[in-house]
Amino acid sequence: MRLATIKKGRDGQLVLVRKDHEKMVRADKIAPTLQAALDDWASLAPRLQALSDDLDAGRIDGEPFDEAACASPLPRAYQWADGSAYVNHVELVRKARGAEIPESFWEDPLMYQGGSDCFLAPHEDISMADTDWGIDFEAEIAIITDDVPMGVSAADAGAHIALLMLVNDVSLRNLIPAELAKGFGFFQSKPSSAFSPLALSPDELGPAWQDGMLHLPLLSFLNDAPFGKPNAGIDMTFNFPQLIAHAAKSRPLEAGTIIGSGTVSNKLDGGPGKPVGEGGAGYSCIAEIRMIEKIQTGEMRTSFLQFGDRVRIEMRDAGGRSLFGAIDQKITRYEGPGR
Amino acid sequence: MRLATIKKGRDGQLVLVRKDHEKMVRADKIAPTLQAALDDWASLAPRLQALSDDLDAGRIDGEPFDEAACASPLPRAYQWADGSAYVNHVELVRKARGAEIPESFWEDPLMYQGGSDCFLAPHEDISMADTDWGIDFEAEIAIITDDVPMGVSAADAGAHIALLMLVNDVSLRNLIPAELAKGFGFFQSKPSSAFSPLALSPDELGPAWQDGMLHLPLLSFLNDAPFGKPNAGIDMTFNFPQLIAHAAKSRPLEAGTIIGSGTVSNKLDGGPGKPVGEGGAGYSCIAEIRMIEKIQTGEMRTSFLQFGDRVRIEMRDAGGRSLFGAIDQKITRYEGPGR
Repeated sequence: MRLATIKKGRDGQLVLVRKDHEKMVRADKIAPTLQAALDDWASLAPRLQALSDDLDAGRIDGEPFDEAACASPLPRAYQWADGSAYVNHVELVRKARGAEIPESFWEDPLMYQGGSDCFLAPHEDISMADTDWGIDFEAEIAIITDDVPMGVSAADAGAHIALLMLVNDVSLRNLIPAELAKGFGFFQSKPSSAFSPLALSPDELGPAWQDGMLHLPLLSFLNDAPFGKPNAGIDMTFNFPQLIAHAAKSRPLEAGTIIGSGTVSNKLDGGPGKPVGEGGAGYSCIAEIRMIEKIQTGEMRTSFLQFGDRVRIEMRDAGGRSLFGAIDQKITRYEGPGR
Repeated sequence: MRLATIKKGRDGQLVLVRKDHEKMVRADKIAPTLQAALDDWASLAPRLQALSDDLDAGRIDGEPFDEAACASPLPRAYQWADGSAYVNHVELVRKARGAEIPESFWEDPLMYQGGSDCFLAPHEDISMADTDWGIDFEAEIAIITDDVPMGVSAADAGAHIALLMLVNDVSLRNLIPAELAKGFGFFQSKPSSAFSPLALSPDELGPAWQDGMLHLPLLSFLNDAPFGKPNAGIDMTFNFPQLIAHAAKSRPLEAGTIIGSGTVSNKLDGGPGKPVGEGGAGYSCIAEIRMIEKIQTGEMRTSFLQFGDRVRIEMRDAGGRSLFGAIDQKITRYEGPGR
């Protein structure tokens, strides 16, 4: 089934979306919001599935569905824990900062606690006070869990994956070095993220969902030009069950926990990737291409996002149809709290 | 007014508590949960205050209040951002790890994003798989905000403080060095925190709430022996409005955001403090006394928390009456997800 949240108050209105994304049906008789559904997932998911089946089979006509009316599936969440499972990305970004990665990064997942109190809508502007902060996007896959007990094994963790989404983990690159140097991880350098309009149950992905990974290209566009299409099933050092087990080592995870894959990144012949325009898989963030430019030309030529720039992130099935709808965001100038 | 959350489902039942903590009245006609109250704080806070006034004046008799029936005021929250405003603590803990603090720590607040999806109840066991993880408590003050706009100034931030609480920011000291070395901040080393049974509006604190700080001793007890009584209004390098402004630099904060002070810590004559038993203000965590022991004797003698140990954290008004009720937790062994 495909779920979405229509903007309404703080937590929105849960709907089910037809496979062609043309129609939707409100789920309010089952659960008013996605969080409410996740809070009682074992008993409500089958009822949501039945309603979804009715919509797909034409037994319900539904209302028109519009991605632009969507909030992020969870407009606010109790947890957003972002992994960095494509260690290739970590290696490149660290190189760009002149730092090496330790060997342990290939065995012990990197994960940071992200802010989850107010996510941007999938088509909402990224409004920032200053482009000197180095505004970048990061295209990722994310999962939503039901209740996960503390100490869950990776073998048992997969059963706790309720839904999948895409995410733009907005990053302020020029604030990162000073913030990480303080030792407490990201805070100001990770402003609000935006998620895809649709959240899909794993079965919607068919054979593309395998081994706890999503085996499809993740498409990023910068001002409508293809920027990245790495396959999310390739070079993922830690799969989602491993990321869940890592997160749950010393505490349980409450239903509605979102766990991110980290920036999707593919190697090319064992080395860094090539831009899409040169026949490569491209990149899921600007920081990577800047690093590769530096390696190749000594100079980072691609600038971070400027006011007016637009980022689009989506994923298509084998038939070319959009799976999650599109994250589609423009960068705008934030004029301050007083206006 | 004094609010509490009685355990019930995931988010509990909001109640108002009489100043003597003997009686309470359910607030469900105003807001079912504390989060619901915070979501519409400007219009609901006056109604909650009126109900509280009725209870305090005896116009309502109320029901018996029992701290042990309480969940944390927000049993789960959309944000838990913990500052480290007592830089003295940071300096000591870093010294214990053989690390120096940079000068900037005195000007730019340290803050980490904490997990907020499932807090422990104030009297709930701290259940951990392994004492080798170095289980420690951290006694802190925390505030809860209403909606805070991005870019708020420290001058304007104070008006967004809705409530105050105490917190035990449970820490796994022996997991910290490896985790911080990875650069992404705390994750496994910061398991679920517990908050005080009561959350108080700032006016309840009278003159003790001043300059964005709480000027009263924070009392910690280890197995009933006094362990710390540092004054939370002394040596707080950044006050709460400054911490809010720091958190809101690049994103808004949604109502119900919790911001912590960091471990309360007082210097003594410009140097590290003395144990309570030797006439000092003592410590709000075990890591500090271990550091001082190492400085003085070359050896850390006090061990981290063992199974069966009990930690109590509270604060009393000038008349010796409990303000927030007590956080009172025992350390127990976690037997794993399968049992």
